[in-house]
Amino acid sequence: MCSINFHCLRCCLQNSLISFLSHFLHGPYPATHFGPKACILPNPTSVMHIQDPASQRLTWNKPPVNVLVIRKIRDESLVGPFKELCRFLVEEKQMMVYVERRVADDASLSMDETFGSIRNQLCTFREGYDDISDCVDLIICLGGDGTLLYASSLFQGSVPPVMAFHLGSLGFLTPFKFESYKTEVAKVFEGNAAITLRSRLKVKVVKDMLQRTGQESYGREPQQQEHNGLPHGHTSSEAGKVTLQLQVLNEVVVDRGPSSYLSNVDLYLDGRLITSVQGDGVIVSTPTGSTAYAAAAGASMIHPNVPAIMVTPICPHSLSFRPIVVPAGVELMITLSPDARNTAWVSFDGRKRQEIQHGDCIKITTSCYPVPSICCHDLVYDWFESLAQCLHWNVRKRQARLADISDSSDTEN
Amino acid sequence: MCSINFHCLRCCLQNSLISFLSHFLHGPYPATHFGPKACILPNPTSVMHIQDPASQRLTWNKPPVNVLVIRKIRDESLVGPFKELCRFLVEEKQMMVYVERRVADDASLSMDETFGSIRNQLCTFREGYDDISDCVDLIICLGGDGTLLYASSLFQGSVPPVMAFHLGSLGFLTPFKFESYKTEVAKVFEGNAAITLRSRLKVKVVKDMLQRTGQESYGREPQQQEHNGLPHGHTSSEAGKVTLQLQVLNEVVVDRGPSSYLSNVDLYLDGRLITSVQGDGVIVSTPTGSTAYAAAAGASMIHPNVPAIMVTPICPHSLSFRPIVVPAGVELMITLSPDARNTAWVSFDGRKRQEIQHGDCIKITTSCYPVPSICCHDLVYDWFESLAQCLHWNVRKRQARLADISDSSDTEN
Amino acid sequence: MCSINFHCLRCCLQNSLISFLSHFLHGPYPATHFGPKACILPNPTSVMHIQDPASQRLTWNKPPVNVLVIRKIRDESLVGPFKELCRFLVEEKQMMVYVERRVADDASLSMDETFGSIRNQLCTFREGYDDISDCVDLIICLGGDGTLLYASSLFQGSVPPVMAFHLGSLGFLTPFKFESYKTEVAKVFEGNAAITLRSRLKVKVVKDMLQRTGQESYGREPQQQEHNGLPHGHTSSEAGKVTLQLQVLNEVVVDRGPSSYLSNVDLYLDGRLITSVQGDGVIVSTPTGSTAYAAAAGASMIHPNVPAIMVTPICPHSLSFRPIVVPAGVELMITLSPDARNTAWVSFDGRKRQEIQHGDCIKITTSCYPVPSICCHDLVYDWFESLAQCLHWNVRKRQARLADISDSSDTEN
Amino acid sequence: MCSINFHCLRCCLQNSLISFLSHFLHGPYPATHFGPKACILPNPTSVMHIQDPASQRLTWNKPPVNVLVIRKIRDESLVGPFKELCRFLVEEKQMMVYVERRVADDASLSMDETFGSIRNQLCTFREGYDDISDCVDLIICLGGDGTLLYASSLFQGSVPPVMAFHLGSLGFLTPFKFESYKTEVAKVFEGNAAITLRSRLKVKVVKDMLQRTGQESYGREPQQQEHNGLPHGHTSSEAGKVTLQLQVLNEVVVDRGPSSYLSNVDLYLDGRLITSVQGDGVIVSTPTGSTAYAAAAGASMIHPNVPAIMVTPICPHSLSFRPIVVPAGVELMITLSPDARNTAWVSFDGRKRQEIQHGDCIKITTSCYPVPSICCHDLVYDWFESLAQCLHWNVRKRQARLADISDSSDTEN
Repeated sequence: MCSINFHCLRCCLQNSLISFLSHFLHGPYPATHFGPKACILPNPTSVMHIQDPASQRLTWNKPPVNVLVIRKIRDESLVGPFKELCRFLVEEKQMMVYVERRVADDASLSMDETFGSIRNQLCTFREGYDDISDCVDLIICLGGDGTLLYASSLFQGSVPPVMAFHLGSLGFLTPFKFESYKTEVAKVFEGNAAITLRSRLKVKVVKDMLQRTGQESYGREPQQQEHNGLPHGHTSSEAGKVTLQLQVLNEVVVDRGPSSYLSNVDLYLDGRLITSVQGDGVIVSTPTGSTAYAAAAGASMIHPNVPAIMVTPICPHSLSFRPIVVPAGVELMITLSPDARNTAWVSFDGRKRQEIQHGDCIKITTSCYPVPSICCHDLVYDWFESLAQCLHWNVRKRQARLADISDSSDTEN
Repeated sequence: MCSINFHCLRCCLQNSLISFLSHFLHGPYPATHFGPKACILPNPTSVMHIQDPASQRLTWNKPPVNVLVIRKIRDESLVGPFKELCRFLVEEKQMMVYVERRVADDASLSMDETFGSIRNQLCTFREGYDDISDCVDLIICLGGDGTLLYASSLFQGSVPPVMAFHLGSLGFLTPFKFESYKTEVAKVFEGNAAITLRSRLKVKVVKDMLQRTGQESYGREPQQQEHNGLPHGHTSSEAGKVTLQLQVLNEVVVDRGPSSYLSNVDLYLDGRLITSVQGDGVIVSTPTGSTAYAAAAGASMIHPNVPAIMVTPICPHSLSFRPIVVPAGVELMITLSPDARNTAWVSFDGRKRQEIQHGDCIKITTSCYPVPSICCHDLVYDWFESLAQCLHWNVRKRQARLADISDSSDTEN
Repeated sequence: MCSINFHCLRCCLQNSLISFLSHFLHGPYPATHFGPKACILPNPTSVMHIQDPASQRLTWNKPPVNVLVIRKIRDESLVGPFKELCRFLVEEKQMMVYVERRVADDASLSMDETFGSIRNQLCTFREGYDDISDCVDLIICLGGDGTLLYASSLFQGSVPPVMAFHLGSLGFLTPFKFESYKTEVAKVFEGNAAITLRSRLKVKVVKDMLQRTGQESYGREPQQQEHNGLPHGHTSSEAGKVTLQLQVLNEVVVDRGPSSYLSNVDLYLDGRLITSVQGDGVIVSTPTGSTAYAAAAGASMIHPNVPAIMVTPICPHSLSFRPIVVPAGVELMITLSPDARNTAWVSFDGRKRQEIQHGDCIKITTSCYPVPSICCHDLVYDWFESLAQCLHWNVRKRQARLADISDSSDTEN
Repeated sequence: MCSINFHCLRCCLQNSLISFLSHFLHGPYPATHFGPKACILPNPTSVMHIQDPASQRLTWNKPPVNVLVIRKIRDESLVGPFKELCRFLVEEKQMMVYVERRVADDASLSMDETFGSIRNQLCTFREGYDDISDCVDLIICLGGDGTLLYASSLFQGSVPPVMAFHLGSLGFLTPFKFESYKTEVAKVFEGNAAITLRSRLKVKVVKDMLQRTGQESYGREPQQQEHNGLPHGHTSSEAGKVTLQLQVLNEVVVDRGPSSYLSNVDLYLDGRLITSVQGDGVIVSTPTGSTAYAAAAGASMIHPNVPAIMVTPICPHSLSFRPIVVPAGVELMITLSPDARNTAWVSFDGRKRQEIQHGDCIKITTSCYPVPSICCHDLVYDWFESLAQCLHWNVRKRQARLADISDSSDTEN
């Protein structure tokens, strides 16, 4: 039996761990008594128990067997490393390797006789038809941040740990160098790797089909939506409502789409209208996404371990419309403004773009299914390294703006 | 006895409270199993137990008796409301009211005979001499965000709950209207008020006195530092080091002071150099401070319940030096860059400005002594209301940037 | 015969007008001798003779007779003022009034019997069919900045003077209040009104039709492009090239259109590649346009009398990609980057959106056909008034960021 | 005799030079007739005659003889190049070389016997005592943008042409590489070099000494102001007013100085109050200065040949206070706001910092004494090269923000 007692927990922890506590990544336990007589009303049912993100390490209940390998398409330079990795996993590590059928069928693999025996042992699947979300123990990405976004889209529930290699230059989501892949992969199989749980947003789009008049625009991927036996994201419908639910790792974007008109959308937080967005659109992003499109739109950059959601307007009409950062647990809702004369378009990590009309709404909150992203060094080092490498953050020529002239004039003083 | 079992806690909570959990302000419990075989290595010693900020309400162990009233000086319009409030607290509520001696001695009070009997019952204290931090049950502020910053500076440890009234226009930290003060104060005395725990930063300045050569500049408040029997902030010294520790509610600013030269400081995070700041300076702020000086310097605005620290450069030499948001629990350190030719100056919530030289360092992390700030409505409403009122956030004239022209041309389509 | 002699001109002017010269809006004549022995090599063929913008006043060679009245469509509140203005122009001022046929045929006019006699005297025309550019002596706009953009689009060469009324709130381009229209219009007829010559950009799109493969997308207004006997803008074609030339008053925008992909375009200045734009797109705007879309994208705001062109990236991938301001006389050219995998879209003052493919190019420079916009007060007052009214520029609550706390603490000093 | 006839000039020019005109850097001649009947009221007395900046080339009335060489102090790496340059000028070119006495007396020169004979031929002067402004034919700078700011400060009237070498990395104002100095200097002596006339601001500070109470703060360079026989800048006084006039090449800054209080200053344009600045201060800069402090404070960057003045707030309290660009010929005035409780501080290109009190005012307009800065390539190339080199403008890693994920998903389409 487990009796949760808030004070008891606190005492216990405070007695034994007091020095360690100051290192929690979310900050120290705040005092709960204020002055001689005030305190927080204890409420055991609303206590969260979070393992300190800085201490989170990955382990295996059972040895991993099934590895999904994702590579960037159309990049010929990745063919060699991809084959090398598959051979290593299959022959040296005796893993079952999953790849997309298209990747396996690509001429660069299928025409290569030396790779034939390996290729025959690969498990292939088709995106949207075959559900592999319960089979994969580990995901390995080769090539760029997009591979990780794609991996995220394949796993709408729990996501296996992801290990991501860059080949050219470092990405925000691809911290590992391919050069030392053998030792790095071996270390991960052994367990105890540092991980960052990258939060995702759970996005629910509710479409009011009764209000649809005539020919509906199904977005830019209609064929996909029709054929999909197994769509990414869950679609359901009832009584004139169609609901689509998706997990995003970077951001949901609501914008004016192909229109030249400003978008006019209303933003609600926990059911309350907080502002209207008039401009090119609005970005709702995770901390992970704060360094992607949101950064381009002017947002400050948030470390992935801050439990927050960022709301960033895109080219807002109002000069004073700064981006804001709200707690991870709020529920945001976006609708067309009642007086909007035009529709808006929504996309999810840059995909599945579709139209939003009057009567539709988009609900967004933090998902309980983060992407467990394996760190190369640790969650602090990796982030600052990628800020510098990917965004040239504060990379500059040293120069003495005001000093130079005084230097010269010093001759006379 | 309290046995902490991470999984047990999770199960228990997840079974009984599953629907409620989704409303935790810090987000839902993240999944701890990833795919079929991976999971987070459980580490009970690193589990935090945080009561959901959205559910935090203030209560009283014993009825409050001692109330500190702070008013903005030099604002004559506050004299009337101040007297009225004191009279109410003393006569109707039988409270012991604390005010600063200067306030009590001000001609506007001391010359008013009708106020004489109340004035005689006030407890007075002198900032820097008399320590009232253990006596005060409740703080009531009249007048502006500065009164709350001042209240924060008086309480370097635990802070009693603060109720803040604005008289003219709403402030970020002063949500209550004075008009209805009687009912509002009565409600607070009854308990159960919604509160926001506004995190503070614990700032430690370590000065290397051995390196000081000749006449030291003691900042702009030397008389205070000399006379103070009871300084705000704790000062200690040993073996050539002088340490000053202070709590700030808004921000620590390191800048070039009166110099025309750029400041050059190095920023460390958890002991690692992450970047150098070349410019007018750098602001390290709480979420509360993100809407103050940091906003003026270009930062995104962070809700006070996000556990984070914001780092914002002031007019940085580098065009790519965006503000960043890091987890509340990290430890930041700032020093002069080794090749800096000039000193820098540090200030704390705009006060106690002093010089920083080679060999000195400033250590900053989130304090465990937040300011419990009583909400007028709730922590979401109050914040967005103050964004709109104080910063005109996204307040704008509705205008159709691109639409107008098409409207006209529609005549022909 | 006119012999231009640079020095002679200078001497003459400098002798007689020396005190007045310091008030030229473009600045004083710069010195042309530097130190004892250096000077600018005189080059009479490259001397410009510009009448000081601050002294420019409108006059009439002959009394104006033909007035084009433009009103915003779909705004019922404008029907009354529109009728009133037409009646005034026709009956009191004996003007010939031009309106679009659609406006005249609108039920609000055609069903109003009391307006019948006036309506019968209106000259109507159809946009795209009837060329009125040689007939109109004065343009009067009712309703919003869009009416002026529309007026600009009707006159691809010389533009008659424009007098623009706002009805609700002030616009950047609509300085006059309707209330006093009779006296204001009468004053303009008398001549001597202050004017701002708002520069326009001459934009030439050269499309390489030979490279077009299969079905070409003709943008969003295909029917217009097919039917137009008299297109806005001039279209010509030769040897596989189609050229479209247009004048814009606010801006040319090149963006990613409906695509989710970043646009990749190259920017040339006077034939030299100066940078590549990777992001949502790029805005090339006049000073007039600097307060429109460019402001939303982060640009500084430029007074309409500064001879300049502004280049503003839209959500650029690079953090350091600031907007730039270049001299009005340069020629900019935009093409798809050679490695761009996607097309881009161009639009002109928000209209005539069309696709840009490899092999196409967009050439932009300042036009010699500005829009002579009649000032309400003068060119300085009108601009700052509209900055405050339209953009809430620096409208704020007075607040003492750092001062407040010190105020309180002053009690002890 | 010279009869100025505006129309005649235009006709003449338009007939003969029509194709060339389109290349004027300030833009083409705007049309002066608008529609069939309107035109600009001709006003010959307000016509400016400007030689196209793009065509401006430097020439010599008489061969140059006197060369001022300025080097950055305290940079040992410059000693060698400095000696080499002096030897070249004295021995090979038979020039009279001017250097500051301190530079000549520096041990690195005075102790070097091999340099003795050259050193004896140098003309030395002392800043603030010896006026060399009428003797110098050419200025050569070695070392950094500060050397050019310093050169500017030495010449408060006409400035000789400036040729500036960088030794390490390119500066905004130092386009020449030292490696090829012999050929580059020889070319300049021959004449016909391309030049940019960098506009300066004429700044007049009028101090109301009658309002001064007690001990005046004379800024940070009191000794200089007292001893100066020949101050940089002109100081005069009459009837309780002291006037200081200075030319700045980058900017005038008005800020809060050592105070923690916000500055409150009022900004007037041509005598009219246009806004109040509440924040850290305000920067009034030339286009040249737009890439210096103003860029750090968030301004767009302006090409040096745009005739404009930039006004940039420093950390303004108002979120909507964007920088603005106004015509070069306006007169700006800055005073303390009437309700400002604190003084402000003004500095000029980072120098001569002094306090501004109630009753004082600062008047700023474009000077007629620009700095003729010799181009290395031309005025377009040099500027974009320095944007990239000095500010890393739009220097970035190529990355496909939205594209990557789609690349992967393409496998299924």
